[in-house]
Order: sequence, then C-alpha cells, then structure tokens
Amino acid sequence: MRTENGESVLARIVRIFEAFTPEESALTVSAISRRTGLHVATASRLVAELVSCGFLTRDADRRVRIGMRMWELATRALPTLSLRNAAMPFMAGVHDVVGQHVQLGVLEGSEVLFLERLSVPGAVINYTSIAGRLPLHASSSGLVLLAHGPADLREQVLKGPLKRYTSHTPVTGAQLRAVLAEVRRQGYAYCSGFVHQDALGIAAPVRDARGDVVAALAVIVPNEPRAAAVVPVVRSAARGVSRALCAPGTPALYAEPGDPCDGSATAV
Amino acid sequence: MRTENGESVLARIVRIFEAFTPEESALTVSAISRRTGLHVATASRLVAELVSCGFLTRDADRRVRIGMRMWELATRALPTLSLRNAAMPFMAGVHDVVGQHVQLGVLEGSEVLFLERLSVPGAVINYTSIAGRLPLHASSSGLVLLAHGPADLREQVLKGPLKRYTSHTPVTGAQLRAVLAEVRRQGYAYCSGFVHQDALGIAAPVRDARGDVVAALAVIVPNEPRAAAVVPVVRSAARGVSRALCAPGTPALYAEPGDPCDGSATAV
Repeated sequence: MRTENGESVLARIVRIFEAFTPEESALTVSAISRRTGLHVATASRLVAELVSCGFLTRDADRRVRIGMRMWELATRALPTLSLRNAAMPFMAGVHDVVGQHVQLGVLEGSEVLFLERLSVPGAVINYTSIAGRLPLHASSSGLVLLAHGPADLREQVLKGPLKRYTSHTPVTGAQLRAVLAEVRRQGYAYCSGFVHQDALGIAAPVRDARGDVVAALAVIVPNEPRAAAVVPVVRSAARGVSRALCAPGTPALYAEPGDPCDGSATAV
Repeated sequence: MRTENGESVLARIVRIFEAFTPEESALTVSAISRRTGLHVATASRLVAELVSCGFLTRDADRRVRIGMRMWELATRALPTLSLRNAAMPFMAGVHDVVGQHVQLGVLEGSEVLFLERLSVPGAVINYTSIAGRLPLHASSSGLVLLAHGPADLREQVLKGPLKRYTSHTPVTGAQLRAVLAEVRRQGYAYCSGFVHQDALGIAAPVRDARGDVVAALAVIVPNEPRAAAVVPVVRSAARGVSRALCAPGTPALYAEPGDPCDGSATAV
C-alpha cells in the first residue's frame, strides 16, 4: 500500500508516533505536520484515523496524545511482560534496601531499552526512563548486554563512534574492549561516572532457562566508594530473577550444571 | 488510503495487532490470516512491513510476536505514565503489607483497563492482568470509576445487559444503582465475590489536582470477613496517590478546601 511518493502508509504512521516524546506528549496537528514533514492535510487525515481506532486521543483543547488502546495492544501480548513480572519482586526488594534507581533493560537494536524503573524523589541524576534508551557503551546495563550479546553487534559497536559523556566514558575500541572483558570476568558492570560524573551504575546479567543473557538488572546510585557494598545486592537479585525465569517445575536433573536452573541452590 | 474493498490500511493493521493475546502471543502468518480474515498474501505483506518497522518481530521459528518498538512508542509518551509512576510507591507499600494483588485501573471506553498489577505467587484467583480489562459493573475498580464517571456512561451501563459472573454480581439496573450509590456514599467499593466467589475486591478513587477521579486503586484478597481490615489501607493509599498527583510546589492557598491538595494534611 504505497502513497503517491512511494512511502507506505505504515511508514507515515510510524513517523507520527515518533513525533511524541516524554517531554512533548501532547501535540497539535500542525506540530505533528512540522515534525514529520507530512503535509498538514495528510497529517490531519492520518491523525483522525488513528484517533478513530484509539491509537491516538484528542484532548479537550484539540491537542493529540498517544492513546491507551495502542498501549494496551502493545503491552498485553508483549514477549517481555513475563520477564518484567518475574523481575518486579526482586527489583522492589533491591529498591527497598538501596533506594535510588533500580531498572531492568533489554537489548533493542544497538541500544539498551528500559522496561521498568523504580525510583524515589531526590535520587541521584539518571537519564533513564521507562521505555527510554541509552547507548550500550556508556550505561552499566548496556555494557552487560553488550558483553554477553551477539559478537557481530559487539564488533560493530567497538568500531565506534563512541559518544563521550564524561572523562570516564570508554570512547576508544581498546577502552571498551577492556571494560567488556572486565564485565565478563567479574560477572557485573561497575560504571563510576560513565554517563554523568555524579552517578554510578552497577548492572548484572539476567539469564533465561537456556543460560542466555536476556536482560540487565541495574541500580544507579551516587558516585561514592561505598557503592561497592551494593554489588552483591544487585548480583543476587539478578540471579534470583534468572531462577524465577526457569519454568516452574522444571526438574533440576534436566538442567545443565552452571545453569541458573541447575538446582545447586534453592529456587526462588 | 483505502484498499480495494474500502477498508483502510490502518484498520487492517489494528486487526493484526488484535489477533495477539496474552495466551497466544506468538502466531504464524497463517494463524494471523485466519484470525483477521485477511487473505494470507495480504497478511504476509502487512506482517513483513510491521516487522521492518519493529512493530512486530519474528522468532527463529518464523512465528510472529508484538515488537518492542511498538511498546516503546506506545509507552514513552503515554499520558498515564506519570499517574502510574506516582502510584507505584503506594501500591508497593500496600502490597508489602497485604500481599495478594494490588492494581491500578483507568476508565477506557466502557471497561476498566489495568495499567499496573503487583501480585505474589499463590495469591487468590484474579482475572486481571497488566493491559487487561474487566467490565465496570462487576469489578471493584470498575464500580469506583463508574460511580464517579460521566453520567451518560453510567446510564448506558445501567441499561445493561450486565453479565452475571456469580450470584453476587449486580445484574439489574436497580442492583447496580444501589451499589454505585453505596460506593459514592462510603468512598470505596467493597465487592465480595462479584467476579469470582473466592475473591473480594476493594477499590478506592484516585483524584487529580482538580478533584476528578482519574483511576481506581484496588486490592483483590481472599473472600473472608477479615478483609474489612484492608479497607483503610486501600483508602489511604489512594488518597496518597491523589496527593502525589497534585503538582509539587502547588501552594495550598490556591487549592480549594476538600481538594486532595488543600494542604489540610502533609503532602506525600
């Protein structure tokens, strides 16, 4: 289904959705037209269609927002919903003890996408938000996912360019390679001031029943040496989530040694 | 942009998304074709387009799932995200003390749509899931939203038909009217066995800074008389969320008496 200039209707619809951001979640049709480059008549017609199916809604003042129906259809059958539900009790436990920010991220394209974040008012600066993204080389969650991710993605990211956020961000291939080796060796990422000089990220891998890393569980705390005490908290929570992901009732006999489901400790 | 039979491309895309459910979150193209009534060639072409923009993904075994990109665009600018984030600490507190299920629902069309749910394994039966729906007349959250919702919606629901889940479900207009009056009078819904005979729902209204009811906070517990002790827990958490929704820093002087932001108690 192509339009006169060869662009699909779907491509135009995606551009409209992309116009909405956490900072600008309500837009007029003319703002949507400007941001998408769509003619205002085209934008107006597509917005009307999207409103009629509930994928967008219109405020009393005619500004347009993302609709609940789109969220509902995107969420109710989302493959990661079971991961997120398995992780929540562990994340809440960490949050009770550590405070600050606790978050769960997955690999999406060449970035980390955050499925969930628990925060308290007044916590240390954190650029993460729910459904927000960060680059793989700079964030603790991203480094865990990259260290255990596909080799071709790793090689692509290592080639750069690698954005410098602070003087501690790994910005050369050699620096990033060393950081990734350390993440694999010690079993977690410890990132002191990589994204912001005042923040420190600690992330550990979450593995599925096959032992593949499917997510990273992380805390963001103030950048102070005493943060080291949080490492075992994050690691044990990530291990707990991994165990919870093993199908309940899977006999430990059928799991390979070293698997999170190998029965070498009590399942959570 | 109409197809040969007059249906819009968007309408077809929506039908494809609707084919996915929590129970069947991975479908083959032929299953999608069967469920949507779309010709398999049409379904195949639209699925390929949706995969290319990340709104759907394909498993290694070629089965199709909802894509993370759709969830990301639906969630990052969702108007209810701030409501959900404001509610989470209160919901977690209730969950710590009460256990079972704690959930947050909003009015969507003529049903309640659940934005969030916290549960423990082994909790009482509950038909709710995240991004799931329940009818307004039978669920405690729905009754709170209906009691405080638009008058025309209330009249429409009162006309019926009202599905009978158990012998306690209000199924006549007169029964429902009495329940709604009670919800308004006492400030919460107390629903003993309305959806399932073993479960009891208690829900209280969450109000925005203008005092409008924007959500219902509910617990689902075993259907026993001692559940009455949970009522003040739910009510105070819902009041707390309402206060948290008042713009931080809003001077109490500018709030009207009786508003959740009137400054008559310490803001949370």
